[in-house]
Amino acid sequence: MPNNFLKIFFQYVAPEDAVERILGSSDICPRIEVIDSLESLGRVIAEDIPSPFSIPKEDVSHFDGYAVKSSDTVNASTVNPVKLKIAGRIESIIEHDLSIGDKEAVYVVTGVKIPRNADAVIPVERTRLIGDYIEILEPCKKGDNITFKGADIAEGDIILKKGSIIRPQDIKYLLEIRKFKIKVYAKPRISLIAVGDELTENLDELTHKKLETSTKLVANYIKELGGIPKIMGVVPDDPEHIIKAVKNSLEDSDICVTIGGISLGVRDLCWRTLSKHPESIPIARGLRIQPGRATSIVVFSKKPVVMLPGHVQSTICGTIYILIPLIYYMSGLSARKILPTIPAEIGEDIVVKEYKSFKRIRFVKLVKQKEKFIANLLMGDSSMLSPILKSDGFIEIPEGVERIEKGSHVDVHILSWSQLLQTFLKES
Amino acid sequence: MPNNFLKIFFQYVAPEDAVERILGSSDICPRIEVIDSLESLGRVIAEDIPSPFSIPKEDVSHFDGYAVKSSDTVNASTVNPVKLKIAGRIESIIEHDLSIGDKEAVYVVTGVKIPRNADAVIPVERTRLIGDYIEILEPCKKGDNITFKGADIAEGDIILKKGSIIRPQDIKYLLEIRKFKIKVYAKPRISLIAVGDELTENLDELTHKKLETSTKLVANYIKELGGIPKIMGVVPDDPEHIIKAVKNSLEDSDICVTIGGISLGVRDLCWRTLSKHPESIPIARGLRIQPGRATSIVVFSKKPVVMLPGHVQSTICGTIYILIPLIYYMSGLSARKILPTIPAEIGEDIVVKEYKSFKRIRFVKLVKQKEKFIANLLMGDSSMLSPILKSDGFIEIPEGVERIEKGSHVDVHILSWSQLLQTFLKES
Repeated sequence: MPNNFLKIFFQYVAPEDAVERILGSSDICPRIEVIDSLESLGRVIAEDIPSPFSIPKEDVSHFDGYAVKSSDTVNASTVNPVKLKIAGRIESIIEHDLSIGDKEAVYVVTGVKIPRNADAVIPVERTRLIGDYIEILEPCKKGDNITFKGADIAEGDIILKKGSIIRPQDIKYLLEIRKFKIKVYAKPRISLIAVGDELTENLDELTHKKLETSTKLVANYIKELGGIPKIMGVVPDDPEHIIKAVKNSLEDSDICVTIGGISLGVRDLCWRTLSKHPESIPIARGLRIQPGRATSIVVFSKKPVVMLPGHVQSTICGTIYILIPLIYYMSGLSARKILPTIPAEIGEDIVVKEYKSFKRIRFVKLVKQKEKFIANLLMGDSSMLSPILKSDGFIEIPEGVERIEKGSHVDVHILSWSQLLQTFLKES
Repeated sequence: MPNNFLKIFFQYVAPEDAVERILGSSDICPRIEVIDSLESLGRVIAEDIPSPFSIPKEDVSHFDGYAVKSSDTVNASTVNPVKLKIAGRIESIIEHDLSIGDKEAVYVVTGVKIPRNADAVIPVERTRLIGDYIEILEPCKKGDNITFKGADIAEGDIILKKGSIIRPQDIKYLLEIRKFKIKVYAKPRISLIAVGDELTENLDELTHKKLETSTKLVANYIKELGGIPKIMGVVPDDPEHIIKAVKNSLEDSDICVTIGGISLGVRDLCWRTLSKHPESIPIARGLRIQPGRATSIVVFSKKPVVMLPGHVQSTICGTIYILIPLIYYMSGLSARKILPTIPAEIGEDIVVKEYKSFKRIRFVKLVKQKEKFIANLLMGDSSMLSPILKSDGFIEIPEGVERIEKGSHVDVHILSWSQLLQTFLKES
């Protein structure tokens, strides 16, 4: 439970409510752009895409082989092979009007239209070639090795819908249906400002300053989640500098993120400065998440400014609960989602009494045990990086919950593809 | 079960054995390169990285606040505040040699060294400033809000190990320990050749040819899994052209992939041509996977040439079981792994009698049901794209298994991050 001192300064808002307020008070919205389908991996489709034709377009052969009448093969056996005359060869994907008669076969390659009257294809390796004839050693059934018109995809089917994320197989499909350009949602542009007199990007200043690294952390999460980060550097704890940097960064960004200077120290000027500015609509002074509870938000000139705390775990939690939904929203996805999860069992009893009305986030390490994952808590205060370095993901302890018993189900949230691969590939 | 015809032509090899044979017969091996840590997201570390110092380097304040002797605050209460004299201020991360005496406090910002004799920090918002004094309204405990030297990471700790995949948090850590350059494994370069008279990349030829799309499919999987694909175009079903294209592509690639022309039709010349070439060591004519059983491999001039079948599901399965382990191996990871999995329950009884000594791969759709995923099979022959377009991943039916009962545990393999996000974000 936050103590009374904190309550005076913070009005903690549920992160979902903060996201809703941002969407209601700002101008941000998904933007559409047209790109080459070939370059669309990972993008989100902004249109429903009906198949312009059936796939396959007609009944086609599944193999290189002989198109036959299945009825001709009924009595075929090794002892008593059936002999069929080769009445033609279709060796490439051409329009044709061939048909077969009784006891005839036509050679077809994979993907060509089945000749009229044929109702099965026998793969070439199951036939014996004797001059102009083939011998068939076993009966085939009607429809064998034929892929019928539209069996894969019917004309007009909408397999790719607005809001789908484009995967490798989707790109193949787009090319197959000759959809070479596609409407997708533009990637949100997010600028990142580090705030703090104590920070520097200059290696010569490291004797008396700390190297600024938090914007790089958040930038890489943004990249993996489909945004375009832009690192704007360090600004000092000074109201004028802060306002100038935010204004400047919003000129070509959809969202501005500041990191640091958001708590209650004398130098923590971000909220005080930005929330009182005439162009600003205050959205949240503090969030009901822990770590990350100092995360604060204003809408400034109609664009969101997300102020993240500087302690690393707090920075990450603010990113997860505010930035990710905003990135998703601008990408044409649901702003109510955060990250993919893996089901697991909690490895030990957890008792978390503090901040009971908050979502409490805890980083965990996964251990595979037979068919399931066990999630073990990694301890360390919010300034510590090692729990995150050692973690495979995090769990949420929901509002109101004080205790999670060993063996309970938990959803472990995965922050990135690099994380997921790491988790799976390290298992021995 | 493969019929006798197929057994004459194919000598099916278990995919794991094929991978071992490739590694034993070729020159491929992980290559190391040095890159900027800032550019290392998703790369695999090629060195153990011990922390060059403790983090934090000394006992530091977790908040902006006042460093105090906790013993001075024992009797503090709202009714009876303890008054401490402000003996100094440390407002930036500087070296200092301050100490405090009894009933004294020193203002410290987050991250600065705790003055000598102080043993706790009281956050500024929990104090009341009165001239040169502060009032404390509740007792604090020894160690409160101090992060002790090395509490996060001890000097010499190897948090980042050889073989780890670099995630956003790892980049932050590398910068924190001033490791700005890092040894990583080079990305494997993989060239892709489509083989087939019926294929074209030229849109003007689509009246009598099929648009080549398979190399783009595999290229995007390679990209998501950390390789560098290079699409070399289409070659006709002609031995000389095939040899020339393979030689040419291997000049600046580690692995060559051909797609198509690998079955048993008259135009299927890849195996026949490449396996008999004097520079070639045959590795596998066929794999014990279905779809994908025609996948064949030679080592040519000491480099692997992976010949994938052209039917889309077969292409993907060959990619998963041969290409991915090779990409992992060259990336410094385990060649015994394929893809991350999500645990699920199978949604229906599955009976698969054919190809019983093979690994059978089936594409599935996931449905979330309370805390677990149900995996439902998507049907369609190996030439069909729609099962893959509709799928969230695939399951393996292991060698020898004929039947999986409804409700059994299955591991659902996830092919890409775009796939995983798609799976999670589409849930309502």
